[in-house]
Amino acid sequence: MESMPDTAPELLLAPHWLVTVDSADRVLVDHVLAVRAGRIADILPRGEAAQRYPNAPLRELPGHALMPGLINAHTHAAMTLLRGMADDLPLMQWLQEHIWPAEGRWVDEQFVQDGVDLALAEMLRGGTTCFQDMYFFPETTAARAAGAGMRVVAGMLLLDFPTPYADGPDQYLEKGLALHDQFRGHPLVTTTFAPHAPYTVSDGPLEQIRIYADELDVGVHMHVHETEGECRAAVESNGERPLARLHRLGLLAPTFLAVHMTAVTDDEIALVGRTGANVIHCPEANLKLASGFCPVQRLLDAGVNVALGTDGAASNNDLDLFGEMRTAALLAKGVTGDAAAVPAATALRMATIHGARALGLEDEIGSLEVGKAADLVAVDLTHADTQPVHDVTSQLVYATGCHRVRSVWVAGCELVRDGHLTGLDEADITARTANWRDRIAAAR
Amino acid sequence: MESMPDTAPELLLAPHWLVTVDSADRVLVDHVLAVRAGRIADILPRGEAAQRYPNAPLRELPGHALMPGLINAHTHAAMTLLRGMADDLPLMQWLQEHIWPAEGRWVDEQFVQDGVDLALAEMLRGGTTCFQDMYFFPETTAARAAGAGMRVVAGMLLLDFPTPYADGPDQYLEKGLALHDQFRGHPLVTTTFAPHAPYTVSDGPLEQIRIYADELDVGVHMHVHETEGECRAAVESNGERPLARLHRLGLLAPTFLAVHMTAVTDDEIALVGRTGANVIHCPEANLKLASGFCPVQRLLDAGVNVALGTDGAASNNDLDLFGEMRTAALLAKGVTGDAAAVPAATALRMATIHGARALGLEDEIGSLEVGKAADLVAVDLTHADTQPVHDVTSQLVYATGCHRVRSVWVAGCELVRDGHLTGLDEADITARTANWRDRIAAAR
Repeated sequence: MESMPDTAPELLLAPHWLVTVDSADRVLVDHVLAVRAGRIADILPRGEAAQRYPNAPLRELPGHALMPGLINAHTHAAMTLLRGMADDLPLMQWLQEHIWPAEGRWVDEQFVQDGVDLALAEMLRGGTTCFQDMYFFPETTAARAAGAGMRVVAGMLLLDFPTPYADGPDQYLEKGLALHDQFRGHPLVTTTFAPHAPYTVSDGPLEQIRIYADELDVGVHMHVHETEGECRAAVESNGERPLARLHRLGLLAPTFLAVHMTAVTDDEIALVGRTGANVIHCPEANLKLASGFCPVQRLLDAGVNVALGTDGAASNNDLDLFGEMRTAALLAKGVTGDAAAVPAATALRMATIHGARALGLEDEIGSLEVGKAADLVAVDLTHADTQPVHDVTSQLVYATGCHRVRSVWVAGCELVRDGHLTGLDEADITARTANWRDRIAAAR
Repeated sequence: MESMPDTAPELLLAPHWLVTVDSADRVLVDHVLAVRAGRIADILPRGEAAQRYPNAPLRELPGHALMPGLINAHTHAAMTLLRGMADDLPLMQWLQEHIWPAEGRWVDEQFVQDGVDLALAEMLRGGTTCFQDMYFFPETTAARAAGAGMRVVAGMLLLDFPTPYADGPDQYLEKGLALHDQFRGHPLVTTTFAPHAPYTVSDGPLEQIRIYADELDVGVHMHVHETEGECRAAVESNGERPLARLHRLGLLAPTFLAVHMTAVTDDEIALVGRTGANVIHCPEANLKLASGFCPVQRLLDAGVNVALGTDGAASNNDLDLFGEMRTAALLAKGVTGDAAAVPAATALRMATIHGARALGLEDEIGSLEVGKAADLVAVDLTHADTQPVHDVTSQLVYATGCHRVRSVWVAGCELVRDGHLTGLDEADITARTANWRDRIAAAR
């Protein structure tokens, strides 16, 4: 961008509300956002835009809010093919009797490709512009997302045991590093290590991951303390709670992303705050699997950066961050007994700038500020179900669904326009999905 | 209907799934539902339909689920004009500092008319075909709903204190009875008494209501035990918990509808079960106002009929029963720590047949059964965000939003077609809404 400061913007967007999610949570009315070379080139009063950029095309978005693209900080995109396959079951029964057997039977590169395409369609259509993934064949996930123009943080998966993707820790690591190399410098793809969970990854590989993460300057993304049962089992088997173990291994740091964290003591909250580790809250999956309640407000009070994830669609059952923001805001109030807990503006920050910070992308995305990538979502608030608008932030969190998203840009490219995907072929994607459904159903 | 058994149906609907919500929760595939004179005239295998009804028009609904219209068993429709006016505040502060002052200043017949129209548009569009309301000027609410072709149970409001609607208990009662008379025998309108809450209605009027309710054979609909604080305050002021007081006054019976019920002891659950009183669960409003958790699964286990309500949009902030079903199912799991609590099929029953039973309309609506009114919702499950369909009930509860509703019929009239309101003028409604927003904002 620096090389062409005087070039005219390619696009001026004129929404009713510009919901910046900047450090002051400013909401600007009668302002225009200028996009140039995939970045936010300017934000200026509407009256000045015509003067300053007389030749740039102006896109009117009357009655719309323009906000930063939503960031899904934890999902398993390919699992969308298993949406609704097993419900109303506790975590371990759900995993051991349904999900793991289905994965063992069906997961291969083709499954991941088709499942990720389905997830991309849903996420983009719903205003999500960036997601962090943890699953088998992450190089396929990264390639599909990048091909669709979506921003992705691909998890370099690691488990102690063999799967159709890798035969053991060394091969997981090797494939992860190859993925990292393959996408190094890619404008849309970054990576994190993704050791699955404390109960599926032993100390040796975690130590290796810590060393590589430091060397490559990437984050480490892991399910941690998803249930109190996980903590109890860890204490029984090795005398240590998982978070203490991860701390002993040197993992807790601003580059660490702990997903779930429903079972945490006061001391553990303080530890997370002190080390600068991030928490990724997945309220709907936690509720659905009855995993416990993540103490979000207490974590925030301790200075912890809390981001939001949908988790996989097999345990959610959608990839809708509007719903997740709303559930996060509502649930925090119920759990604390304090209706002021996690107000709307905080929920919106969790789904945007907090996500960016957790993923190490704070300088690039997560807010509407000049110089950042033009990852944008235009939400139509003119319909009966989002009227009246007394407070636009409240409306976005408490009353708007993903279905009111009209346009979505990633790095300045309009991937959803007037509610329709511009690049992905939804009919082809749903046909491939139906084919998987039939194959899976026939074998059950 | 009995008078024309041989008349051909006006319409045959051929969805992919017929989600009956009958006593066996049957889901029928390759079946057709026949509508005649506003009622469900037949349900039969697709192959037989052409033979039995060769001249009836067949409407194909490929990839759609056809389900009973959703029943919102508790709302304050007109308050939709106050959506998002005050958020992230506890119940009493929200009521005393924001809602009651706004109502005192703004509520009149025009406010109720415009607010109800806004609510009707949102509810119909989202698959709700019947709602029970509690608010000022209920005769306006009933008239607007009936005029729009929507089914309504109008609450005959009563408070101890004067408001712009009535000057005291006698006048509330008088106006309520006039409303009851006005709509007696109306095909879409029934009534319930709606004493606001134990803390706003004293014994005398409640005794009168009990006598009239028996005489007129209508229900009594009341906020009860919305918070533990309400119960504590009652005990402090008169030594009795509200539910015990209502029982002493003879109100607890199968005609009683207790809204909220977050604060209930084991004995109170047993009492509700024994008396046959209904509970109306409003999970999102309870969460948002941090009111506590209604023990839904324990109530169900005690044989209580639990229905669902959105409450008003000022405390929700929408009128979306798909969202409410989902929240009810998710929250019950989180609160009990049992992922099997309130499974998808139960949540769907709460939003349909349980609602019908609570409102005394079980023989008329709430399930797809021959002879019942044709209150129907067609949901399009072909898009990426609702694919694949491994289990249609799971999909409707956990993965589908109100935005996938394509057509809605009330008593056989198609009030939403292809996602658009056929009768209500949405542009006019949102213009009137914006006008209220401006007036309210200018005065703040």
